[in-house]
Amino acid sequence: MRGSIGSMLLDRLRLSGVSRIYGVPGDYNLEFLALIERTPGITFIGTCNELNAAYAADGDARLTGIGAVLVTYGVGDLSALSAVAGACAEGVPLVVISGMPPWHAIESRALVHHTLADGNYDNVMACYQQFTVATARLHPASAVAETDRVLHAVQAFRRPVYIQFPSDICYVDVEVGSSPVAAGLSDPALVDRAASCIAQRIRQARQAVVLVDAMVRQYGLAERVQQLCMQYGIPYAALSSARTIMPEEGQEWLGAYGGAASAPHVADYVHGADCVIGLGVRFVDSTSGYFSQQIGVGALVDIQPFSLTCDGENFQGITAASLLDAVLHKLAAQPHKRADLPPPAVQTAPPPAPQAWEQAVFWPKAEAFLQPGDVVVADNGSSMTAMLHARLPARCSLLVQPIWAAIGYSLPASLGACLATPHRRHVLFIGDGSFQMTAQELSTLLRHRCNITIFLINNGGYTIERMILGPKAAYNDIANWDYASLPMALGPYAAPLSLRAGSVAELDAALAQAARHEGVVFVEVGFTPMDAPPAMAAMGAAVRRYDYGIETPDLKDA
Amino acid sequence: MRGSIGSMLLDRLRLSGVSRIYGVPGDYNLEFLALIERTPGITFIGTCNELNAAYAADGDARLTGIGAVLVTYGVGDLSALSAVAGACAEGVPLVVISGMPPWHAIESRALVHHTLADGNYDNVMACYQQFTVATARLHPASAVAETDRVLHAVQAFRRPVYIQFPSDICYVDVEVGSSPVAAGLSDPALVDRAASCIAQRIRQARQAVVLVDAMVRQYGLAERVQQLCMQYGIPYAALSSARTIMPEEGQEWLGAYGGAASAPHVADYVHGADCVIGLGVRFVDSTSGYFSQQIGVGALVDIQPFSLTCDGENFQGITAASLLDAVLHKLAAQPHKRADLPPPAVQTAPPPAPQAWEQAVFWPKAEAFLQPGDVVVADNGSSMTAMLHARLPARCSLLVQPIWAAIGYSLPASLGACLATPHRRHVLFIGDGSFQMTAQELSTLLRHRCNITIFLINNGGYTIERMILGPKAAYNDIANWDYASLPMALGPYAAPLSLRAGSVAELDAALAQAARHEGVVFVEVGFTPMDAPPAMAAMGAAVRRYDYGIETPDLKDA
Repeated sequence: MRGSIGSMLLDRLRLSGVSRIYGVPGDYNLEFLALIERTPGITFIGTCNELNAAYAADGDARLTGIGAVLVTYGVGDLSALSAVAGACAEGVPLVVISGMPPWHAIESRALVHHTLADGNYDNVMACYQQFTVATARLHPASAVAETDRVLHAVQAFRRPVYIQFPSDICYVDVEVGSSPVAAGLSDPALVDRAASCIAQRIRQARQAVVLVDAMVRQYGLAERVQQLCMQYGIPYAALSSARTIMPEEGQEWLGAYGGAASAPHVADYVHGADCVIGLGVRFVDSTSGYFSQQIGVGALVDIQPFSLTCDGENFQGITAASLLDAVLHKLAAQPHKRADLPPPAVQTAPPPAPQAWEQAVFWPKAEAFLQPGDVVVADNGSSMTAMLHARLPARCSLLVQPIWAAIGYSLPASLGACLATPHRRHVLFIGDGSFQMTAQELSTLLRHRCNITIFLINNGGYTIERMILGPKAAYNDIANWDYASLPMALGPYAAPLSLRAGSVAELDAALAQAARHEGVVFVEVGFTPMDAPPAMAAMGAAVRRYDYGIETPDLKDA
Repeated sequence: MRGSIGSMLLDRLRLSGVSRIYGVPGDYNLEFLALIERTPGITFIGTCNELNAAYAADGDARLTGIGAVLVTYGVGDLSALSAVAGACAEGVPLVVISGMPPWHAIESRALVHHTLADGNYDNVMACYQQFTVATARLHPASAVAETDRVLHAVQAFRRPVYIQFPSDICYVDVEVGSSPVAAGLSDPALVDRAASCIAQRIRQARQAVVLVDAMVRQYGLAERVQQLCMQYGIPYAALSSARTIMPEEGQEWLGAYGGAASAPHVADYVHGADCVIGLGVRFVDSTSGYFSQQIGVGALVDIQPFSLTCDGENFQGITAASLLDAVLHKLAAQPHKRADLPPPAVQTAPPPAPQAWEQAVFWPKAEAFLQPGDVVVADNGSSMTAMLHARLPARCSLLVQPIWAAIGYSLPASLGACLATPHRRHVLFIGDGSFQMTAQELSTLLRHRCNITIFLINNGGYTIERMILGPKAAYNDIANWDYASLPMALGPYAAPLSLRAGSVAELDAALAQAARHEGVVFVEVGFTPMDAPPAMAAMGAAVRRYDYGIETPDLKDA
């Protein structure tokens, strides 16, 4: 079958699961944009800038399994790079397409705009190679094979890929063939040996626990893991990079694990286990309480996307999915006694609610506002800290970015989440410093009349930095905006509901109003600069020690 | 002399001419920020995000000669990369400093946030190496030498450099020495031979012309060039990448040159010249009317920052500054007859002002609003096109970015310009598509109570793209904001003046009010989607042909 390179790429993208492409028009991507507009089943979502486009695609991909971005060369793809690196760090599959100067310009090393005007057409590619698992520059002689190679890589490695699409070949007619079926990725004999190793460890375990990391979302393994845990009575805990991927309720749910930052009953159980089945576990400073994990010597059964390390032996040539299937099969074949689960943690009574207007009042009420099935997005800083400590209702999805940890991520990521799951309610928690980074994308949330309630936590600056150093330093202060007026300024036609709460009574009223409203709701809540969830001070002390070698437990009164 | 690495770096930056550092705090740069706050003569200017910080530093550097940026690793420096690449493309000297994870983490390949959490600490550096002239990662054993090397490069090559500053060495005490004196860069004998070549060409010329490009700003050569032109009666023209660097008045000013896009008398003179003294000339698509320059065979005397090509001979090991000095010296020693200048161009009467409210009414009035000494900033698209065709009053500086051509550049660049030259009035022209890219930085202009009048040209989308392809395509439309309400939303305390003009009478009233107001003035003017300066349609046709091979002279009614 023959077709144009542009339509071939769009067909392949749809087969890969892409139904929305986020981005910004530019002179090198206009023909491809025109083609998208004429193609059913795939929609272009314009964003205010390219960084935000990539964040939006990231939010979409975390809920749908894949995201896509279309930008123009140089000015566009480099602006999106930090967000793409974030998706790479966090294991989010993105396809980034850059409309590039035409081949005749590349071949003649022409001095064109959106380049350094020195004839170098390889520097942007050199950057993207650092933060993607595959890259390609499409050429009529190899466009189909290259597209298939790159899209295979995004499916196999579930991280970003990058395609340069020169402007003058969109309508070139080529033999498009059919998209190849993904080849089996595992060697059955190796899978069998690796699964035996795990099954044996589970059978012999005195105390087993499953530790879930982002790989479970990345490779869609949640059901398999749940089956393993429920059938064999293995409790599971999740790192902060993997919250809400597995149900956070029921007998097997142990709790959030983050080294010394965990609840005591979770830390005790994980640290006391002789069999820790790790699912893609990476102990990163921000997910491990600054490397305070204590996994028993030899306890870790380390399942990674394409390998297993178990009892000192390393297996390559397998996939985590086929491995889990084989483990389930083996355990079923030779029935294994269901272990006794640890008794549920004693619920400590919440501390008495303070009378004063402070975050200690706000977060429990915000938590109570959440409903089953909500998509909760929380930016770095107070918001993420609070949500990682909240008990979320059933079937909630929590979107956070604890590893790349870019402030400003959450607002455009919410856009992608809203468009990915329009029938769910979305709730965003974001501080003022984060909000200012990417604030314009509020306009796109309004444009698409998204179903989202945004809590803007205004404490006049970067409280996450104040907790580390400079609690009263001017550089941690930012300009105060009249935040509550922004929804009307950026989307007057969308009739947004915008509220401001500066007292408990006002907050209660705002929450009641917000719960009744469809569409965009914006609630500004203001606090003093050093008012933050309690865990922030501990985080600040850990960072201060790690980054600067300073041993000061609390800077609050410095 | 001994001192800390942090204070050594600050001292060296001040000696290089840096007095403002734009950026965003992050956990890896806090100690250095604290040091800046205690250091007289150098000020940290917080911006809303890192892309905007680098644009602001670029605007500052174009007026002061050097700009500086401080961000945090990964999330920060990658977000700024596109703007730094722009500075590299346009020849703007920037020092970008990235607060990096501590050396103990780098050495142990620790898995920390703001990285891919894979132990790789070299990927961000690999990106910056593509778009800078020198990079360094500071280490106590070599911090002083490395700092001097990198700051020497930024002075020599007048393009961006990049310094990674691990968080744990800011207060390490080292022998700081004294900043080395910049060594002479030229070989006097070579300069003498090269200057002879040029002097001879000037003496023998039937018709000589000087063609100015960005190098003249970059290396501060304007006075030398002016002296050459005035003393020997050589007219000069400027590419769009070099406007207002030389006075745009007086007998020697020929006009703007851009190949077929030039005024006829300028094109005729340049194309008819047998001696074209090019000062850093690069013919880029966007500055040459898509490569329509016609320089006589053998006519070009090509002076570049460190070389000359003249009569087929190439000289290295010289600087443009020393070369111009030597040429002036040679011509003075053996007096050269001042040539007759071309008669001034006949001023064509402006077309009769239309009655309807359209851009043809707006731009002449905007031009009349400008005053001698204004700093005029114009974003890509209609604004830059109009300003490149305007006649600017004496001593105006025009800041545009025609080569990198990133929309959204101008608003944060205006911030840098305002802080660099606070006693001048600033006037920004920006379209709605560009404004939405970086809109939050309006808040920082308000925060610093900048002296700026902003004209927001609202035509509901990317008219520059509509002129190329898709004049009625949905992807070129953007959400409409209530732009005029933004100054109060983003800086209520600064008492901004915000106006909206939708008719000639309203515009006249707004211009009169704006002229009387100190501080931030915001004027929104709205036009229909395809209303643009006449040159935009020609540009669109040229891009359409170059990028897509489509020969359609006018898409306006497509």
